[in-house]
Amino acid sequence: MEDIAEFKRRNKCSRLVMIWAASTEIFLKQHAVHKTLATFEQAMRDNHKAIAPSMIYAYAALKSGVPFANGAPNLTVDIPALLQLANQNNLSICGKDFKTGQTLMKTIIAPGLKSRMLGLHGWYSTNILGNRDGEVLDDPDSFKTKEESKLSVLEYILQPEVYPQLYKDFSHVVRINYYPPRGDNKEGWDNIDIFGWLGYPMQIKIDFLCRDSILAAPIVLDLALFLDLAQRTGMKGVQEWLSFYFKSPQTAPGLYPEHDIFIQLMKLKNTLRHLRGEDLITHLGLEYYD
Amino acid sequence: MEDIAEFKRRNKCSRLVMIWAASTEIFLKQHAVHKTLATFEQAMRDNHKAIAPSMIYAYAALKSGVPFANGAPNLTVDIPALLQLANQNNLSICGKDFKTGQTLMKTIIAPGLKSRMLGLHGWYSTNILGNRDGEVLDDPDSFKTKEESKLSVLEYILQPEVYPQLYKDFSHVVRINYYPPRGDNKEGWDNIDIFGWLGYPMQIKIDFLCRDSILAAPIVLDLALFLDLAQRTGMKGVQEWLSFYFKSPQTAPGLYPEHDIFIQLMKLKNTLRHLRGEDLITHLGLEYYD
Amino acid sequence: MEDIAEFKRRNKCSRLVMIWAASTEIFLKQHAVHKTLATFEQAMRDNHKAIAPSMIYAYAALKSGVPFANGAPNLTVDIPALLQLANQNNLSICGKDFKTGQTLMKTIIAPGLKSRMLGLHGWYSTNILGNRDGEVLDDPDSFKTKEESKLSVLEYILQPEVYPQLYKDFSHVVRINYYPPRGDNKEGWDNIDIFGWLGYPMQIKIDFLCRDSILAAPIVLDLALFLDLAQRTGMKGVQEWLSFYFKSPQTAPGLYPEHDIFIQLMKLKNTLRHLRGEDLITHLGLEYYD
Amino acid sequence: MEDIAEFKRRNKCSRLVMIWAASTEIFLKQHAVHKTLATFEQAMRDNHKAIAPSMIYAYAALKSGVPFANGAPNLTVDIPALLQLANQNNLSICGKDFKTGQTLMKTIIAPGLKSRMLGLHGWYSTNILGNRDGEVLDDPDSFKTKEESKLSVLEYILQPEVYPQLYKDFSHVVRINYYPPRGDNKEGWDNIDIFGWLGYPMQIKIDFLCRDSILAAPIVLDLALFLDLAQRTGMKGVQEWLSFYFKSPQTAPGLYPEHDIFIQLMKLKNTLRHLRGEDLITHLGLEYYD
Repeated sequence: MEDIAEFKRRNKCSRLVMIWAASTEIFLKQHAVHKTLATFEQAMRDNHKAIAPSMIYAYAALKSGVPFANGAPNLTVDIPALLQLANQNNLSICGKDFKTGQTLMKTIIAPGLKSRMLGLHGWYSTNILGNRDGEVLDDPDSFKTKEESKLSVLEYILQPEVYPQLYKDFSHVVRINYYPPRGDNKEGWDNIDIFGWLGYPMQIKIDFLCRDSILAAPIVLDLALFLDLAQRTGMKGVQEWLSFYFKSPQTAPGLYPEHDIFIQLMKLKNTLRHLRGEDLITHLGLEYYD
Repeated sequence: MEDIAEFKRRNKCSRLVMIWAASTEIFLKQHAVHKTLATFEQAMRDNHKAIAPSMIYAYAALKSGVPFANGAPNLTVDIPALLQLANQNNLSICGKDFKTGQTLMKTIIAPGLKSRMLGLHGWYSTNILGNRDGEVLDDPDSFKTKEESKLSVLEYILQPEVYPQLYKDFSHVVRINYYPPRGDNKEGWDNIDIFGWLGYPMQIKIDFLCRDSILAAPIVLDLALFLDLAQRTGMKGVQEWLSFYFKSPQTAPGLYPEHDIFIQLMKLKNTLRHLRGEDLITHLGLEYYD
Repeated sequence: MEDIAEFKRRNKCSRLVMIWAASTEIFLKQHAVHKTLATFEQAMRDNHKAIAPSMIYAYAALKSGVPFANGAPNLTVDIPALLQLANQNNLSICGKDFKTGQTLMKTIIAPGLKSRMLGLHGWYSTNILGNRDGEVLDDPDSFKTKEESKLSVLEYILQPEVYPQLYKDFSHVVRINYYPPRGDNKEGWDNIDIFGWLGYPMQIKIDFLCRDSILAAPIVLDLALFLDLAQRTGMKGVQEWLSFYFKSPQTAPGLYPEHDIFIQLMKLKNTLRHLRGEDLITHLGLEYYD
Repeated sequence: MEDIAEFKRRNKCSRLVMIWAASTEIFLKQHAVHKTLATFEQAMRDNHKAIAPSMIYAYAALKSGVPFANGAPNLTVDIPALLQLANQNNLSICGKDFKTGQTLMKTIIAPGLKSRMLGLHGWYSTNILGNRDGEVLDDPDSFKTKEESKLSVLEYILQPEVYPQLYKDFSHVVRINYYPPRGDNKEGWDNIDIFGWLGYPMQIKIDFLCRDSILAAPIVLDLALFLDLAQRTGMKGVQEWLSFYFKSPQTAPGLYPEHDIFIQLMKLKNTLRHLRGEDLITHLGLEYYD
């Protein structure tokens, strides 16, 4: 917290935002000590193993009056204790896991398939990357954190409970492999087995040659601006309208996370329009038919 | 027209809809004889070369009080003469060119790239198909009709005039090749050259193994139902809210055609909600932050 | 052995061949009990865990005077005890692991890259398959058996010790994933990072939509005929000239296994030519320049 | 010719080799004036349209005692007149069209398919390239020259007349498209429809991200050395043993051009071994079975 205060003083900042962009941490389920601010603080003092490094940074930010965004798939601020702290201090938080390469593509394609009611037999995704991120994710514990974040995307977009004939029981496999020749670049290969009219099978293959840092950098900038905007307009707690930027959007407790990137974008734009007092966009346009 | 009346009588139909799904015709620009119903009717009597077979069918439908949808890329009802006839007879029309394989994919991916402000250097698309459609499109005159329909998609979605740094002067190449081993199936291969932060180049390759008839059949069914609905609710003329189904949506004269499949879908859904008197969807959801 | 004798009697066969085509067994290293026929027979009586089911079948075949080919990646006949038994009974054996999908492709492409002295940074291979083979290979112990068989291929073809500037320290990753929608079909995706003149990097991607049983069936037939031929011409022990059919060719002890499919083919053809007393092919053809 | 003499003098060369690597010329069939040296020389004086620029360079080289290799798909030295001149002056020539990207891959894969007797329904190849080569080949006349060179490859390797059940009447489509974003790089995408046991269809897709100049440069160097070697060993006329480097190998009149890269390589290596008086390689190795 002193580092934060010192940074603010030295750079003569009037307002700060903290954005977490470190490597994936080991998989943690929500634990009893995460339930309240009091138990959380006690656990920190006890060096409890359920307190991940990222949580300590988030705590420091929120204690210092700084809104916090989580770009990694770790729990971090997605626990009742830190949500309580954010609300108490009128701070906005959001997360988790920047939506960049393959999952970005998935949340673009899946709404497209659903728009046309094309069924899904399976989606196989593999990633090769050659830097430290790849090495970390070759470790099964870290990969589990990431996998949870990556797998839920399709379920939420396709709603198998609403469309069981199309989307019940599809196979979804996600793999990440450390492959040094790829270096700081990344390659995602997807095979998508869909079916159309009369159950006719069709296939889509996507090869995405990309670079995480290039896709993530503008997200960091946008989030810095929008978290600060949220702060200035007095919107505290989980900022769901920023779901657009995340693989695994943090929601108000019990709410359905939105993964469809086009709905996320509309939510983002209409929220901004609302904040400026403008009309919301509905794309109705019935004036054409008069 | 006698065929239409006979069909209606024999099948005891109270209402009809006509949907055009024949092969692509030779490229035609709008001609002077298309300007008014009178000149059009005279040209029909003169066997004028600017009168394509599909126009004669459309004329017969509209004369018989039957709404008409155009699933091919030909002009057909997209001329002032037939729009005048439709309006005169209080009929709804829509078109053109069913959005099925590669262009469907394009109008899914392009809005995704734009949502994240990823720039575009070029998009190369090639198609191989082995049936009569493939043979017809190997003919340069027919291909020109199709190419016009396929090329405009990206320009309209990406708006280079609004985002010149991202979308000005990208290369867009579309090819269709007759390749008999593919049979009634189709394969579309796309290479997309994008750039991100700091102009860093990235590539996306998409291989779509599909079948036109399977992707088109549900469109025909939906359009039959929705054109009939439009008719019953008294919406006459160009039905822009059905753009969702077309590669090259016919608009009211002078209006911007919408190609983004997600905006098209929202327009379709909100139009249906409006017809039922329901609230329109905006995805705002500010109640979360209270 | 009674089953073998009974089969021979009932089908009135004068000669038999046994070909093993069952699923991959758990990984086994060569063990002390495999060293001699005596220790092997004792271990069988003791139900020793180093005796795999396939070894018992191979033993029964060789004891019954039947030559044996191993289509799976297990050790099976590739142990001194069973080689001793084969030699003792003047029987021919060969193996191991039918070369069908991705490895077939690898032993086609790698010699091509080497022919032009194109360097290799890395080769990433992933397989998806949906039947019992896929399920078995999702088990890490079985996968290890397969992986050993699949990985050595490139090292042997590219000879990094001869061409260190081109082929030393390349990354080679092979993955197999169980993916039910693929059913009995298989899909192999390969990414190959090569480099040419001045170290310039280039990439090759290969997607192979295939079916193991279709690619394996003719191998079984060929091997039945050729093992019988070997038997009739008195060639006993390891039949290296049949390497053409195997992912991991069994060689005489201490010899270099040949993986290049084109050298394997030439060896196969010239062996057949030699057996018929024909001239061997060298493709010299200097008569052109006279 | 003065330029050649001047170059030789200034650089103090004792021996020269000329290698043609310019862009593809307009398609020319063999013409009456190409039949003899006399008619050719007369046609040059008449500025006859059947005399392409590359022929004049080749003539100058051969007149100056310089062996000539043709790296482009044009006829150039592949006409009786210039062969006559080469033989007269005891000079070696070879050609035509450097085998670099997609065709290189084709002559690697096709022998592999044939080795396993996998049938072929069709092979579709498309290329995108962004430099002047791409622009030139977008011109139908130049493309025809290239297409002829590229199409024959499969016919010669697969021998449909020998294996009609496997290789008769396959579709072979080759396309080249100018696509500026690719710049000096090239991308070749191939779809290969094969069939196996019982006619079961399978597919192979290959995407090759490469660069012509990088793949061609070592060919130029090798040819310079080998043509000079041929010259020193007194091998005059068409150097068929250098087929390894060419898409469309020039042969002695009436002979079958060899396209299989592995046979070409063996021919190259065994020719070199023969020139050094070494044993030829047959890969027989029967000593294993003694």
